[in-house]
Amino acid sequence: MAKTVYSLEFKVRDYECDLQGIVNNANYQHYYEHTRHEFLMTHGISFSRMHEEGIDFVVARVELAYKYPLRSGESFVSELSLYQEGVKYVFLQKIYRLPDRKLCNVGRFDTVCLDHGRLSRNPDLDAFVLRVNGAE
Amino acid sequence: MAKTVYSLEFKVRDYECDLQGIVNNANYQHYYEHTRHEFLMTHGISFSRMHEEGIDFVVARVELAYKYPLRSGESFVSELSLYQEGVKYVFLQKIYRLPDRKLCNVGRFDTVCLDHGRLSRNPDLDAFVLRVNGAE
Amino acid sequence: MAKTVYSLEFKVRDYECDLQGIVNNANYQHYYEHTRHEFLMTHGISFSRMHEEGIDFVVARVELAYKYPLRSGESFVSELSLYQEGVKYVFLQKIYRLPDRKLCNVGRFDTVCLDHGRLSRNPDLDAFVLRVNGAE
Amino acid sequence: MAKTVYSLEFKVRDYECDLQGIVNNANYQHYYEHTRHEFLMTHGISFSRMHEEGIDFVVARVELAYKYPLRSGESFVSELSLYQEGVKYVFLQKIYRLPDRKLCNVGRFDTVCLDHGRLSRNPDLDAFVLRVNGAE
Repeated sequence: MAKTVYSLEFKVRDYECDLQGIVNNANYQHYYEHTRHEFLMTHGISFSRMHEEGIDFVVARVELAYKYPLRSGESFVSELSLYQEGVKYVFLQKIYRLPDRKLCNVGRFDTVCLDHGRLSRNPDLDAFVLRVNGAE
Repeated sequence: MAKTVYSLEFKVRDYECDLQGIVNNANYQHYYEHTRHEFLMTHGISFSRMHEEGIDFVVARVELAYKYPLRSGESFVSELSLYQEGVKYVFLQKIYRLPDRKLCNVGRFDTVCLDHGRLSRNPDLDAFVLRVNGAE
Repeated sequence: MAKTVYSLEFKVRDYECDLQGIVNNANYQHYYEHTRHEFLMTHGISFSRMHEEGIDFVVARVELAYKYPLRSGESFVSELSLYQEGVKYVFLQKIYRLPDRKLCNVGRFDTVCLDHGRLSRNPDLDAFVLRVNGAE
Repeated sequence: MAKTVYSLEFKVRDYECDLQGIVNNANYQHYYEHTRHEFLMTHGISFSRMHEEGIDFVVARVELAYKYPLRSGESFVSELSLYQEGVKYVFLQKIYRLPDRKLCNVGRFDTVCLDHGRLSRNPDLDAFVLRVNGAE
């Protein structure tokens, strides 16, 4: 399995909590998306600039396991690992509450690269995945 | 004052409610925006197509009065009137709970038209505002 | 497999679209959640009232397959089937664009019932699942 | 006018941007709300705990001036000042893009305190407003 290559800290915002008093399920996808985009940006890959150049990195499949709910006032860290599986770039992502690192959510995002709408491997991304994982 | 020229019914969605059990304040802006866009669309004005043509209809100023909170399970109607004031297109919008028509929110949105980034009156929109208000 | 027991029509709202011009991934969870809650409400089961009584229906696991993106201005129907699998209530949900019924998204939501925080089968829900599927 | 008593840095998240490529108007309310709640929390006032004790701090009126749009990838600082005006607690809030401190948005939030649903001045909050502004 791929190693953690990026982590980002967040604080729950009250508007993300629903009437059960916990973070609404859909917001975990927001947290994970922001983590992926910040990770890519850190490496000079801008999601919005790629879009302007006709290249979209799209999510094809998502699995989310809700282990423990986040609540108002809590902080958490979102961790990311990344590997390639054929035409797919797979992000494994986890959310741990801080400071006790209780595992709250596990996500798997299968993404693909669309070059002007056509599914395609992107050599730059391929090289990036190897590099970020410390491979030669 | 301008007359009501459009109305749209909604149902509160639970994810729009926050931990106070009421619709989160920001969502009224969403309701009002969707009402404006549907109104324009009804008259053949597509917000996203305008954007592609370099014309953006942007909100410059918003006033919202929160009269009474909407809650989970409630329906409401969003009503709109529209007039022109110099370079501004002013939308007056109200939200009434259904079926009792209790006034929940009043909004005023001052919008302007940016043609490729430049503030400008748009003759098509000017004619539209007159027409929709029943003027010659 | 369980049959479709509920369907609800939606219209994409522009604020749900992101800078790729398509509905943001997380919003499908919102569509599906609203569909489940409306379905339950139709049968007299109020999500917010259950919460007040100490019973929370929580999502434990989600799988989403993004088949085709929804765009600004489009309408769609969200369909739901439901079956029981041990302690889990499984919702199978699909989103079809209208009017051509192109399949846009497939979701599976494994939900469980927490009675004052404790995982438990809920006899009322068990009976409800059977009844809604037309079983004796 | 009251002085700035709190500031909080944010980074735009891509899901907050709409198809115009800019932060959707409603999200400024989210930014401002999170700033207010973090400010209160910093001073030991928990919005969700107050709610549990029957005290809700609600927004009665909002004015927002959209000066300049925030975009994907940008950081900003949200600044807050606070004063009392009769039964109202008025938050003046501004958002400046970083690092150039270009003024992007100005907000004014008139809030009131509901004690078990009844409008009321809250002596603790009154004292807090004086203290935070450095008055005796």
